[in-house]
Amino acid sequence: MTSLSLPAILAAIQPLDRTWIEKARQRTAQLVMPPRALGRLHDIAEQCCAIQQTLSPSLEHKAVVVMAGDHGIAAEGVSAFPQEVTGAMVRTFLAGGAGINAIARHAGARVQVVDMGMAATLDPQTTPGGDQLKISKIAPGTASFARGPAMARTQAEAAIMAGFAHATDLFDAGVQMLGTGDMGIANTTPSAAIGAVLTGCTVDQMTGRGTGVDDAGLARKIAVITDGIALNRPDPTDGLDVLAKVGGFEIGGIAGLVLAGAYHRRAVVIDGFISTAGALIAHALCPTVADYLFAGHQSEEPGHALMLHHLGLAPLLSLGMRLGEGTGGAMAMTIMEGAVRVFKEVMTFDQAGVTAG
Amino acid sequence: MTSLSLPAILAAIQPLDRTWIEKARQRTAQLVMPPRALGRLHDIAEQCCAIQQTLSPSLEHKAVVVMAGDHGIAAEGVSAFPQEVTGAMVRTFLAGGAGINAIARHAGARVQVVDMGMAATLDPQTTPGGDQLKISKIAPGTASFARGPAMARTQAEAAIMAGFAHATDLFDAGVQMLGTGDMGIANTTPSAAIGAVLTGCTVDQMTGRGTGVDDAGLARKIAVITDGIALNRPDPTDGLDVLAKVGGFEIGGIAGLVLAGAYHRRAVVIDGFISTAGALIAHALCPTVADYLFAGHQSEEPGHALMLHHLGLAPLLSLGMRLGEGTGGAMAMTIMEGAVRVFKEVMTFDQAGVTAG
Repeated sequence: MTSLSLPAILAAIQPLDRTWIEKARQRTAQLVMPPRALGRLHDIAEQCCAIQQTLSPSLEHKAVVVMAGDHGIAAEGVSAFPQEVTGAMVRTFLAGGAGINAIARHAGARVQVVDMGMAATLDPQTTPGGDQLKISKIAPGTASFARGPAMARTQAEAAIMAGFAHATDLFDAGVQMLGTGDMGIANTTPSAAIGAVLTGCTVDQMTGRGTGVDDAGLARKIAVITDGIALNRPDPTDGLDVLAKVGGFEIGGIAGLVLAGAYHRRAVVIDGFISTAGALIAHALCPTVADYLFAGHQSEEPGHALMLHHLGLAPLLSLGMRLGEGTGGAMAMTIMEGAVRVFKEVMTFDQAGVTAG
Repeated sequence: MTSLSLPAILAAIQPLDRTWIEKARQRTAQLVMPPRALGRLHDIAEQCCAIQQTLSPSLEHKAVVVMAGDHGIAAEGVSAFPQEVTGAMVRTFLAGGAGINAIARHAGARVQVVDMGMAATLDPQTTPGGDQLKISKIAPGTASFARGPAMARTQAEAAIMAGFAHATDLFDAGVQMLGTGDMGIANTTPSAAIGAVLTGCTVDQMTGRGTGVDDAGLARKIAVITDGIALNRPDPTDGLDVLAKVGGFEIGGIAGLVLAGAYHRRAVVIDGFISTAGALIAHALCPTVADYLFAGHQSEEPGHALMLHHLGLAPLLSLGMRLGEGTGGAMAMTIMEGAVRVFKEVMTFDQAGVTAG
């Protein structure tokens, strides 16, 4: 854990040093290929140079943190799945049997799960795979933001600080690239609320079918979010207020992961709709975090593109994924590591004995 | 090498057995996630099931074949680089120092290079890394299609058969997924000609800047292609005629790789503009090859999207790449392998003890 305060963290985050981007671009220009012929792979590598402040960046050591939490708003009938699924899926993550496990193994990333506030209680000592489960349970689920704030402001800050601390531990253990993931039945609902408040888009634009609600479910979801925002009046200039009033514990945890990446100068790859809602909270607290962020993929959830636009991020993949768990971010890690390998391993024109065009 | 004739190969290629797709979709529906929540990853895995005729497909063993050739049309000033670069880049591939080497290492794919018809002569015995160089030199470069056919029809067939034989050797050695790559200064020019003839799009639509010609170079390139097509009158219903009149030896080799994938039921991942021109030749000979093809990425070359549309393929990646060498296809291999791992490794709802929504 950390003894830092949230204001101290926010004050310490620095923008990327552009001189590293320039140095990296000079190296890219020497690689034996037409100018910038690998497109965004060059941009990725150069951003990683600036993040790590080196011309020999590494993304070899990778982790995905899946933040889990439950939501009082689930009682409003906004999800196609019952709340019990949150805990059952966390068991599946720990057993290595979910989508994120398969993709993270492929990407060479470890998967850590944090109980940020599930209704279920899992004991790391007795749950199979529990050595990868961390407990930072703020409460056993948020309150329904249809009736008042989802959580207290102190809980919102505690969720962010817990995420920051878990990421810090991983960075201290050598992790060079961190993916964010989520599990929490109904969590596209608070994510859409956060998205609408912080981007200024309408609830209609920001709200989709999540795991698969029907037309009536979608209409109900939009009404619940609209009414919840009207009731709670979250302040879009205050990320903690937005998180507290319409957010979720796992979303706060993700915001903490994002802040930790920027604070410790490590690349953070966000996943889809819920992870990006967490990034929006972090961005509201400190817009500079975007310098350290990569958008793993474009979710099928319609509001996701609007969120990414607000953050100034372009997705690396667009494969029709909408699972969450960190799957899109973990898959994108393979692209990012490849980009860095190109930067480090390709010969220069001089080394190859090829004359530039 | 093979004793098969080209007509025998074409006659033996079979479409995918749709019953394997259906069986694979049933398995996907059991995976512990909302219905088809990983989007195209499911489609990829199911197509691989049908290609390999198993519900336990594997893409672990991978190779990229980089087909190299030179082009008489280079004398018309259509490229930003001199012809000597073809041989110099092949030396770089063999030394492991090019973009394709870095990405293929990252993807876990071996790189083999075939001299299909370079102007330069490299001896596998004396060239560093020459154990990965195969020689199928049809001729030391094509003739300029500004003055007549690029090659004889017999040479076109020989190029395709050489590609088929090299792929067959790799499949016999256990390769489960083959990427296609190219090297040949000026080869976006014959590729654009092939694209225009076989898709029916205009030369203007199909022609881009390749490695980076300026506005005058682009105008010259368009004029050269337009005049070359008018002079040679390639028959769009006859893939061999198109390859012979306006193609290239490495493009014919790539067409042979594509045919071999379909013949031997192995996944083939095509790269960008030149590889897709090779796939268009194979497709003109046998449209069924598309069942076995994956489009690795969307090239920046503007005609590439039109080619892919003609083949009915959607690119896996869109990262602004335009290098060739097989780089986009090799990077996409990481996505495909991840897709297959999801299919095989994710638990079912029953296994995970989760109730479907």
